[in-house]
Amino acid sequence: MEFLTGVKEEQTLSLAQLKEPERLGQTVQVQGAVHALRDMGNVAFVVLRRRDGLVQCVYEEGVTKFNLKDIREAATVEVTGKLEASEKAPGGVEIRLLDVRVLSMPEAPLPLAISKWKLNTSLEARLNYRSISLRNIRERAKFKVQEGLVRGFREFLYQQGFTEIHTPKIGAKGAEGGSNLFRLDYFHRPAVLEQSPQLYKQMMVGVFDRVFETGPVFRAEKHNTKRHLNEYTSLDFEMGYIEGFEDVMAMETGFLQYAIELLKKDYAKELSILDVSLPEVSRIPAIRFDEAKEKVAEKYQRKIRNPFDLEPEEEQLIGRYAKEEWGADFVFVTHYPSKKRPFYAMDDPEDERYTLSFDLLFRGLEVTTGGQRIHDYQMLLEKLEKRGMTEEGLETYLDTFKHGMPPHGGLGIGMERLTMQLLGEENVRETTLFPRDLSRLVP
Amino acid sequence: MEFLTGVKEEQTLSLAQLKEPERLGQTVQVQGAVHALRDMGNVAFVVLRRRDGLVQCVYEEGVTKFNLKDIREAATVEVTGKLEASEKAPGGVEIRLLDVRVLSMPEAPLPLAISKWKLNTSLEARLNYRSISLRNIRERAKFKVQEGLVRGFREFLYQQGFTEIHTPKIGAKGAEGGSNLFRLDYFHRPAVLEQSPQLYKQMMVGVFDRVFETGPVFRAEKHNTKRHLNEYTSLDFEMGYIEGFEDVMAMETGFLQYAIELLKKDYAKELSILDVSLPEVSRIPAIRFDEAKEKVAEKYQRKIRNPFDLEPEEEQLIGRYAKEEWGADFVFVTHYPSKKRPFYAMDDPEDERYTLSFDLLFRGLEVTTGGQRIHDYQMLLEKLEKRGMTEEGLETYLDTFKHGMPPHGGLGIGMERLTMQLLGEENVRETTLFPRDLSRLVP
Repeated sequence: MEFLTGVKEEQTLSLAQLKEPERLGQTVQVQGAVHALRDMGNVAFVVLRRRDGLVQCVYEEGVTKFNLKDIREAATVEVTGKLEASEKAPGGVEIRLLDVRVLSMPEAPLPLAISKWKLNTSLEARLNYRSISLRNIRERAKFKVQEGLVRGFREFLYQQGFTEIHTPKIGAKGAEGGSNLFRLDYFHRPAVLEQSPQLYKQMMVGVFDRVFETGPVFRAEKHNTKRHLNEYTSLDFEMGYIEGFEDVMAMETGFLQYAIELLKKDYAKELSILDVSLPEVSRIPAIRFDEAKEKVAEKYQRKIRNPFDLEPEEEQLIGRYAKEEWGADFVFVTHYPSKKRPFYAMDDPEDERYTLSFDLLFRGLEVTTGGQRIHDYQMLLEKLEKRGMTEEGLETYLDTFKHGMPPHGGLGIGMERLTMQLLGEENVRETTLFPRDLSRLVP
Repeated sequence: MEFLTGVKEEQTLSLAQLKEPERLGQTVQVQGAVHALRDMGNVAFVVLRRRDGLVQCVYEEGVTKFNLKDIREAATVEVTGKLEASEKAPGGVEIRLLDVRVLSMPEAPLPLAISKWKLNTSLEARLNYRSISLRNIRERAKFKVQEGLVRGFREFLYQQGFTEIHTPKIGAKGAEGGSNLFRLDYFHRPAVLEQSPQLYKQMMVGVFDRVFETGPVFRAEKHNTKRHLNEYTSLDFEMGYIEGFEDVMAMETGFLQYAIELLKKDYAKELSILDVSLPEVSRIPAIRFDEAKEKVAEKYQRKIRNPFDLEPEEEQLIGRYAKEEWGADFVFVTHYPSKKRPFYAMDDPEDERYTLSFDLLFRGLEVTTGGQRIHDYQMLLEKLEKRGMTEEGLETYLDTFKHGMPPHGGLGIGMERLTMQLLGEENVRETTLFPRDLSRLVP
């Protein structure tokens, strides 16, 4: 019988502790994986990779009580040595090794040169060897930045009185209608994977007023582009008692401002590793869909082919326009055509061909879709009828409106896309831990 | 063209603002849903439900410029009135109504008496009307407490140097083997819903050293008990460079201590609404599986039927034993039999019939399973062979170990179960927003 009384203090040191000036000259212990090993004869450099960064260790024949041949790259070790200042080492310190304890040894050489600054390997190879390629310091840093964005989303929304919810991913019906759904057998009943928490989060506005969720969504789209995934993480919120959909855009602007400050504060190391220049978020322009199309057609001599659709190239040009005209990295495009939005979108009473909705473009790519929702029961029924949809599978959703709902709106942000644009990546798979697409189901 | 510059300040007041002494006597505006309406003739009490609690308003004929008949329960409104002290009102203040602006009106009377303190309705009915029943103050409070637990999990682990990850839920193979998996068609390839992020989080230990994830898991178990769900939220972490599985238990103890303090600090209102007595977490006993079985058999005169299995009743008795012997609400049961654990569990080198693993029981119910994992490539291969398993679908997982992994361990906590036991509920569906079980796929 023993008792657990809380977290055990780590016996070995962190990078931050190694940098404390009073430790210089002391004998220290550090754990890590052998990230790089450069044997120069009598002396060798052993670089350890830890969660908090790299530590340079110096092996000296005769001094270190250990045979260098007993480790290699990708071994994990606990080293003991004397801490010394070193201008050239990362963090300004290095450990002159006295002893090495091997914790584990690899069985085979690494398939990728992960210790290089940039992994000169195809995306395909990096995804095939995902658990190895992410050991590269730059590859890894992308997902720390992603963590910061998600953390910022939650922290900001907690402060704004939102409640976090966890809605089911297996359901009887999708939020946007019947297409693009993965189907499965649920104990001999037909079921689908939810393509959005939309209907659930709306229902929860009647309970908590403001709710959010960060979770997976599933889309069986047969796109194979640099921007699409078949499973991704959606950052969703929904808020009641709004005056208009501008309140939702204002809340998203607040989130972005908060997240950028959080990145500066807690993820400066990763931003520097990736050489990221943070976007301007103090003010974000909003422009109507039809107006944006016209402005872009005019400025870049582009013909409008379909007034009710926005092509990827047009999105890019709107992003370029926002940058050139207002110095803006982000731009809200508002009043999307009704036929392009799902049944629950609130039509603009001033022109029902358009909705009180928006997309947020970040450097020319859509990263958010949002808007005001219909909260009136009769209006919802009419909209369903107009679309030729039935109430089947929507009973609880519709009942919720029958029993009263405040005016509300919300949005969904694609986590991987937001990260991709922030880091200036060309393919959303670069910022997806284990992508799922038309051809990729493993690893 | 307009610019969004950040969150718009709310024009109406929060409950905290209403309680500021200097506001007494002022004319205030508040938004909310009509939670209860008690008409006494010339005077009526209109209780508003907001995300932060209830606000009592007093309607007086002739004073309030509004016809009381124009609202009813479940309407959403913005009220204007004079703020006055009132000992009997929730929060010690009430609003004497001057005017009411209706934001939305319900179409039909509520199916449940949600304004009662306790909803005297069957669980079945409450789940069928989930979006309505949760409008009850006590029902709603359960999920705020749940939020606190999840928030505590993340905040604590961030502090301990863990990185948050998002792993795919659609995969080619399950972590625990082939049974109990929901199967689906993924673009004409057979796929499954992951029953755990186990294999992914282990692979990511080689990258980030310490990782966690909070997300859905899917189990096609044909159980229909008060403790089982077919989809639930798992709080998972995995940590490298451990000396033994005790490090994992110590980390979980630290989490529980942190979460309980967070609940006391930020969720005191909900704890009070639900009359929760918080468990003792300053020290948590740990007892071996075989020893626990013996102690319980001895003390409660119960025959041991199967020395390698723990029946639900035995779990309950171990919980009772821990309470009686050590005053403990939680107890770690360690060294589970190897045949009861998945292939990746590390066997105890001192007796290979047992593993270096544990369950955490909370008031007699398992809420966590965890332990040390095998980190040696050859040992993993041997274990797979011994179990008659093939490497198929595990290629990337096994490759990760071939290329070096530190000693590591981790755990998974059932979010709904943890909440259930904390709140003293009898059925895990009470603490699940939209449960999925053998018979329940909607709402």
